[in-house]
Amino acid sequence: MNPLRVVSFGLGPIGMAAARLALQKKSVQLVGAIDVHPDKVGKDLGDLLDLGRKVGVTVDADAESSLRRLKPNAILHCTSSFMPQVKDQLLLAARCGVNVVSSTEELLVPEFQNPAIAKEIHDAALAGGVTILGTGVNPGYAMDFVAAIATAVTFDVTAVRCVRVVDAGTRRLPLQKKVGAGLTTGEFEQQMATGKFGHIGMRESVAMLAKALAFPVDKIEQSVEPVIATETRTTPFLTVQKGQVAGIRNHGYGKVLGKTVLHLDLAMYVGAPDPRDEVILESTPPIHLKFHGGIAGDQATAAILVNNLHQVVMATPGLKTVMDVAPPRLCR
Amino acid sequence: MNPLRVVSFGLGPIGMAAARLALQKKSVQLVGAIDVHPDKVGKDLGDLLDLGRKVGVTVDADAESSLRRLKPNAILHCTSSFMPQVKDQLLLAARCGVNVVSSTEELLVPEFQNPAIAKEIHDAALAGGVTILGTGVNPGYAMDFVAAIATAVTFDVTAVRCVRVVDAGTRRLPLQKKVGAGLTTGEFEQQMATGKFGHIGMRESVAMLAKALAFPVDKIEQSVEPVIATETRTTPFLTVQKGQVAGIRNHGYGKVLGKTVLHLDLAMYVGAPDPRDEVILESTPPIHLKFHGGIAGDQATAAILVNNLHQVVMATPGLKTVMDVAPPRLCR
Repeated sequence: MNPLRVVSFGLGPIGMAAARLALQKKSVQLVGAIDVHPDKVGKDLGDLLDLGRKVGVTVDADAESSLRRLKPNAILHCTSSFMPQVKDQLLLAARCGVNVVSSTEELLVPEFQNPAIAKEIHDAALAGGVTILGTGVNPGYAMDFVAAIATAVTFDVTAVRCVRVVDAGTRRLPLQKKVGAGLTTGEFEQQMATGKFGHIGMRESVAMLAKALAFPVDKIEQSVEPVIATETRTTPFLTVQKGQVAGIRNHGYGKVLGKTVLHLDLAMYVGAPDPRDEVILESTPPIHLKFHGGIAGDQATAAILVNNLHQVVMATPGLKTVMDVAPPRLCR
Repeated sequence: MNPLRVVSFGLGPIGMAAARLALQKKSVQLVGAIDVHPDKVGKDLGDLLDLGRKVGVTVDADAESSLRRLKPNAILHCTSSFMPQVKDQLLLAARCGVNVVSSTEELLVPEFQNPAIAKEIHDAALAGGVTILGTGVNPGYAMDFVAAIATAVTFDVTAVRCVRVVDAGTRRLPLQKKVGAGLTTGEFEQQMATGKFGHIGMRESVAMLAKALAFPVDKIEQSVEPVIATETRTTPFLTVQKGQVAGIRNHGYGKVLGKTVLHLDLAMYVGAPDPRDEVILESTPPIHLKFHGGIAGDQATAAILVNNLHQVVMATPGLKTVMDVAPPRLCR
């Protein structure tokens, strides 16, 4: 089988990690890279990734000419968390007949926050004969997909609880900053008000579970609060003083007539003990599933994007979700 | 959405459990039942299942006339573990344009033991425009599918180990008998020689993982040995004396150039401590996943059959595996 021809679209931290991984895969050939950042345009991807060698792929700012010239089977799309920001990029891919694996969090359940855009992208995907898929580790796997899969061996499910505990101190600097490590509580509140801070996609995870398991959820809510450091801790990148923000606690709830049937409990802070991913089903029979040590977010996100490339190429056309396409697994 | 019209094909213990569950689903309408056993033919399924009510479905011995008359969307197929025995039934379903979810263990990786039959069934499925899927808990989920899914968040995997521990004392009598509980070691050896004793499908699980994860496995082997009771134990159905067989230990191995890269370790015996399902990946990052208490085999097998009905109806035609169709999850 010929390797898939793939273009990296978006070279932020996640896009760079995914490109680096794609370069290691025998069944994938990275043939192009797209980014508009002036520091990146025109550079060889090998230099940008500090590989110590050229890879013969030059970063191009012009997405349309890249896709039309290279005719890839799929793009690794990592540009924004929000559908309005990525809409034109996805419509372009569809017009160019290119399948998409995207890290855009809002694509997990496209019709949840952006039904009109979802329909436009779906129609374009059908017209272009391509599959467009949003995926990731959270949302997309740890607190939603895994729980949905766990219900496969049950007769009935009355409630789902997912617990994800991440020690932010072991993660990259952007993640530590994203959860507010080292901020005062006042600074934390200001950051939260921007809407681009903290974990993006909690309500998507709840919505995905509600849809996948046909829970008649009538209300999806979340709460976010800072976790305050009870002692001073130093990470490889920063120090959190006692009394400063160590990170976040983010709860998501899916409710039916006021009763919580879906409860997602995410803790990401410097020093969080017992990192893990857990799924607890109130079900027949009951299920208690645990990733001991948790699922490493940074590596895992790059991995799951690359590990869905073959799936989007094989799938029937349309804007799909991870519950529609073939199950993700390691591609080599 | 109209409920799926479903026919139960095969009313042994698993088929009966699946039929019972299907009757509880709003999105499924059980419209027929097929079995050739003289004690079952002509009976109302409600009586056969001891529901205390008629359900208006009479067991019919004639599969072809049932399928042609009822025109179901799918059958729940539970007649045999072996492909040569089910071939004609599946070809019939394909000719009648009926999708299939089957408990036949050998269908998990159809080309592994029966490539010629697999091709015949696949061609018939394409011609009939139907999807035919083999699934189950083991093989089909606990020691293969779950491990494959767990690799989705990794860069690379060098080895997979799955551990399944089932306390046979908590399971139905047929399972206790299948693992030899209460036999002498001599009787155990005689039973093993029949080839229809113990766990069916270990090599299929190894083959599925090898294929799903593109391990270049050149040898698939298994070993089966009796577990001897170190004390006398009584289950609701039988007593195992100290020194008698309590159950089985079944190892499956997938090897590359003599090195074991896939190791599946199954223990099913009366009194087995710490029942669980575990997946340990030697991978980047490492993964350690555990179903605490394990996945209950009897209920879970019925569940996963019913929970794949919508998937086969939605899938493109052909003889498919659980790695090809949309991920399984609770249907209501």
